[in-house]
Amino acid sequence: MISVVIIGSGNIAQHLFSVFSKQSLVKVKQVVSRNSKALSFFNSKTRITTDFTNIEEADVYIIAVNDDAIATVSQYLKNKKGIVTHTSGSVAMQSIKNNGNRGVFYPLQTFTKGQEISFKEIPICIEAEKEDSKRVLKELASLISNSVYNVSSSERKALHLAAVFVNNFTNHLYSIGAEICREANLSFDLLKPLITETANKAALIDPKNAQTGPAKRKDYKTMDAHLELLKNEKNKDIYALLSDAIKNKYGKEL
Amino acid sequence: MISVVIIGSGNIAQHLFSVFSKQSLVKVKQVVSRNSKALSFFNSKTRITTDFTNIEEADVYIIAVNDDAIATVSQYLKNKKGIVTHTSGSVAMQSIKNNGNRGVFYPLQTFTKGQEISFKEIPICIEAEKEDSKRVLKELASLISNSVYNVSSSERKALHLAAVFVNNFTNHLYSIGAEICREANLSFDLLKPLITETANKAALIDPKNAQTGPAKRKDYKTMDAHLELLKNEKNKDIYALLSDAIKNKYGKEL
Repeated sequence: MISVVIIGSGNIAQHLFSVFSKQSLVKVKQVVSRNSKALSFFNSKTRITTDFTNIEEADVYIIAVNDDAIATVSQYLKNKKGIVTHTSGSVAMQSIKNNGNRGVFYPLQTFTKGQEISFKEIPICIEAEKEDSKRVLKELASLISNSVYNVSSSERKALHLAAVFVNNFTNHLYSIGAEICREANLSFDLLKPLITETANKAALIDPKNAQTGPAKRKDYKTMDAHLELLKNEKNKDIYALLSDAIKNKYGKEL
Repeated sequence: MISVVIIGSGNIAQHLFSVFSKQSLVKVKQVVSRNSKALSFFNSKTRITTDFTNIEEADVYIIAVNDDAIATVSQYLKNKKGIVTHTSGSVAMQSIKNNGNRGVFYPLQTFTKGQEISFKEIPICIEAEKEDSKRVLKELASLISNSVYNVSSSERKALHLAAVFVNNFTNHLYSIGAEICREANLSFDLLKPLITETANKAALIDPKNAQTGPAKRKDYKTMDAHLELLKNEKNKDIYALLSDAIKNKYGKEL
């Protein structure tokens, strides 16, 4: 049995709590957060507190708060014997104030509030100062996911950067697609099967080999027509830059 | 029974042929293409020919060739009575040389060679000069898809532009993600669940409301660290421009 205290009450805290609660080998002893309203999600399911000076003993502490608050929050755990981890993609393990037993428990996924998700396929990136702690974190992660990786702080930084491209930036491209549909009085539903299939394809084929479109085939006529069609200047810039990048990338290889 | 002749032997021609072949109410009478090697895919399944002056009579002709070749190929069909359509997102219906009975049969999807796909969810965008022909094309499309739309040439242009953003450009972002992983000796598999979930989210939530990440929350520290991490100048430019676009978009709304 691994005992866990979760610090934080947001999206990731709630998803981790839900998946841990289903495991007989994990006990979430307490959830700690300043946000008493968000804490109500956990009420009656485990002990909750807004008092950071009153955190219980546990094998693993999971700090699931905003990146900026991790260091501050970790100070309340300085004297704990358990492993103190955070869940962030971009914060170094060393940002946790030294208790001599630090780690990272980073689930590489986008979470939607209130939307349940299967953890089994979510990669969980583990890092720990001590070998013993790494073993415990791996055990904990393996209970909820089939996909557990040892990832160092510097590797995690690269991974987080890559995630920004395939998640944050991709989502912005979806937004632009939705905007273009709206302006033409077309339903965004028309694009949804294409969005899904484009993502599915990336799981099967190296995206480099899946590239298609006017930029790849240097179809200047279509690209010019598209640029003319775009009203939003920022979207024009994005179209031009991405087309140029694709053109150059595949141009060299022709 | 609707009789069809397919002109072209590439990816879309093969996928359309396969799905039509499963319909008892459709008969693909012939496939016509200059590419005798690609034609072998259809051999023994229907009649094939490389002779464009020898095209059979049919209710519907589907020209599934490169955008640039549509006009040229359509000249061979000038005297046919059937509906002459093309499958392109960006070519106007009027590009078909006038036989008085033109149309468009545009499946809005990305097709992978050799990878079967369910047509049922693929939006098929229909356009036709004559009301009667529109009815026939709708009937044909409805046999293979649950999602048939009337889309004019100008609407189709907007749709194709939007598709470039959510498919071609998104795929390029996947490529960059894969590149960053490769440079850090990390498996691209780590990003695949995130890619899938990001796409799934767009089907449930307006992407505008799903936006997250350093740019959205104006986390300059992380953005600067990311820019420093990027070695490829083009990728730096893309990071900067997309971050800026997201920052501005959500900045105004705060």
